[in-house]
Amino acid sequence: MTVPTHPVLSCAAPHIAQLNPYLPGKPISELERELGLHGIIKLASNENPLGPGLCARAAYIEAGSELGRYPDGGGFELRQAIAKHHGIDAGMITLGNGSNDVLDLIARSFLYPGQEAVAAQYTFAVYPIATQAVGAALRVAPARDFGHDLDAMLALVTEQTRVVWIANPNNPTGTWLTATALRDFIKQLPPSCVCVVDEAYAEYVSEPHYPNCIKWLAEFPNLIVTRTFAKVHGLAALRIGYGVSHPEVAELLNRVRQPFNVNAPAQAAAIGALCDTEHVERSIAHNDAEMLHVTTQLRRLGLEFIPSVGNFVTVNLGQPAAPVDHALLHAGIICRPIANYGLPNHLRITLGLRGENDRLLDALATVLRR
Amino acid sequence: MTVPTHPVLSCAAPHIAQLNPYLPGKPISELERELGLHGIIKLASNENPLGPGLCARAAYIEAGSELGRYPDGGGFELRQAIAKHHGIDAGMITLGNGSNDVLDLIARSFLYPGQEAVAAQYTFAVYPIATQAVGAALRVAPARDFGHDLDAMLALVTEQTRVVWIANPNNPTGTWLTATALRDFIKQLPPSCVCVVDEAYAEYVSEPHYPNCIKWLAEFPNLIVTRTFAKVHGLAALRIGYGVSHPEVAELLNRVRQPFNVNAPAQAAAIGALCDTEHVERSIAHNDAEMLHVTTQLRRLGLEFIPSVGNFVTVNLGQPAAPVDHALLHAGIICRPIANYGLPNHLRITLGLRGENDRLLDALATVLRR
Repeated sequence: MTVPTHPVLSCAAPHIAQLNPYLPGKPISELERELGLHGIIKLASNENPLGPGLCARAAYIEAGSELGRYPDGGGFELRQAIAKHHGIDAGMITLGNGSNDVLDLIARSFLYPGQEAVAAQYTFAVYPIATQAVGAALRVAPARDFGHDLDAMLALVTEQTRVVWIANPNNPTGTWLTATALRDFIKQLPPSCVCVVDEAYAEYVSEPHYPNCIKWLAEFPNLIVTRTFAKVHGLAALRIGYGVSHPEVAELLNRVRQPFNVNAPAQAAAIGALCDTEHVERSIAHNDAEMLHVTTQLRRLGLEFIPSVGNFVTVNLGQPAAPVDHALLHAGIICRPIANYGLPNHLRITLGLRGENDRLLDALATVLRR
Repeated sequence: MTVPTHPVLSCAAPHIAQLNPYLPGKPISELERELGLHGIIKLASNENPLGPGLCARAAYIEAGSELGRYPDGGGFELRQAIAKHHGIDAGMITLGNGSNDVLDLIARSFLYPGQEAVAAQYTFAVYPIATQAVGAALRVAPARDFGHDLDAMLALVTEQTRVVWIANPNNPTGTWLTATALRDFIKQLPPSCVCVVDEAYAEYVSEPHYPNCIKWLAEFPNLIVTRTFAKVHGLAALRIGYGVSHPEVAELLNRVRQPFNVNAPAQAAAIGALCDTEHVERSIAHNDAEMLHVTTQLRRLGLEFIPSVGNFVTVNLGQPAAPVDHALLHAGIICRPIANYGLPNHLRITLGLRGENDRLLDALATVLRR
């Protein structure tokens, strides 16, 4: 960051001037430019390696015939489809340009200078960014076994707390919370505090005690659940997610929402994705098989990892991850070092196709043997 | 708006709870549902009736092969293409999910409670919304001949003014400012005040004294120019626009920008659109011809209109526009009544295809004869 050279910059909103932007996974095209490599694989952004299913692809192509028209700003058909999928009312849904957008809308609606949010250590980087971008303070509860310590989080809730950010499963660790633990936690929150449960990876979880918090919305008007089409539905390129909440909360979030925040092909493809339960099942089965394969191989390499219910696994390299990541990049493999999450020895690996995973495991073995 | 029934709503940020959301043009699908009509035409949202050109369409189709991957959050290739197009440095560009997103980023970066913005009467509704959504105050200068009165705007600038919003050409009136007038205005602004010039309709203007403000950026570090691919480039469905500014201002805007705010097909199609100068020329020629045709017919109908340099014309019906709009909707024609802009007798008409324009003119003649 350079020193501002012009008076206009000294007039920027102070909470924005201090903001550290999100560090995304390196795009393949960027590594190609930087190192002149080809055949690069990316296991860095928790994408579905199978991509979207045929219904979503067909809907995308069809949407190409109307590129000159603004999208439906109200997202009528997609909200109807989501409502039907979950058995809820369409008025409970807020569409977002990715679930990131919904998280941002929540921050803008409930947080402002003087107010506080609570999150866990080692959790999704967008929570602190969204909080700081509106000038509110974030209180961070120490993790327990790399996951959320709900008691520690509750202890940080004060009269000023307006939002508690929870990821279930958690990113970048893959840990998860049981229905009993999470429900007890929400019950103890003051009714003036919003509890956000980010379920971006929900579809991948097969644990019997894992909750679908959308079922709890009638009971907790201060609960907001977020979902995305970027993970199991394989539509990361299109940016589409949603929040589910009490209808009055949705009405509030929709006020601050940009009128055309979700573009037309994203709405169309998401409707296609919701119909395609076979593709979701195929993607989950693929993920289960690769999780077993990759973790088995990691154990053989003598590497510890955080048990994960997501589509990624976070490995403790027992040494700084940065040089290992550097070597992997030069071998054409993009993973995600997470020193920015306070885990400098860990590397987050997205489960890819079998060939991609084996290439990563081989390269990792080679690099660590040096 | 219903009365809040739950404590969580009374804790919402006060500036959000008071916000009136943007009223978009009615989508064709909505009118089909409401009235059971078919063959509806939409002349309501200043879209390009020719849609995008072949290069943009081809790029869209190609982007369909990578829907599972996150977009390039930095928008490297598109920023390079825009930089080349304008002969500027890529570091001056901030990509937005539509130029609406860029306007929102500007408000979030420079405005907060206690600060002020200035805009003209009868100007784009997103300026007051973006200002109010961050809790800042908007001061509105009376219009002169339905356009910006720059002297009146300057008179409202105080030490608290951080942003002046200018649309050139203006929407919803189609009026425009000369290079001399606008340059004098910017020169007189305090260097701590950002001047936003929204050039969404710039490509349509052939007036010799109309400025391309991007050329002035080296001189005014407090100037931000916004552009969009939704109008002449025919990509409204994809949501893509950009801001051009001093690189340090761009760096600031990019901090608050959501990391993947512009989706992958939008980036790809926009690159295609920039290469396709023929399609832009064809779209402008079509617009010029239809502007002449429609305004000639409006004169024959004895209707006054505001002289417009955009791809739309705003007609004074000499009576409340709402019942006329209602009758047009029942005839399957969507225009834009602009009572929400303080112009209850005016109707904004987007220039469509010749057949669409003639259908509108016929229906308008019939309705007004009643």
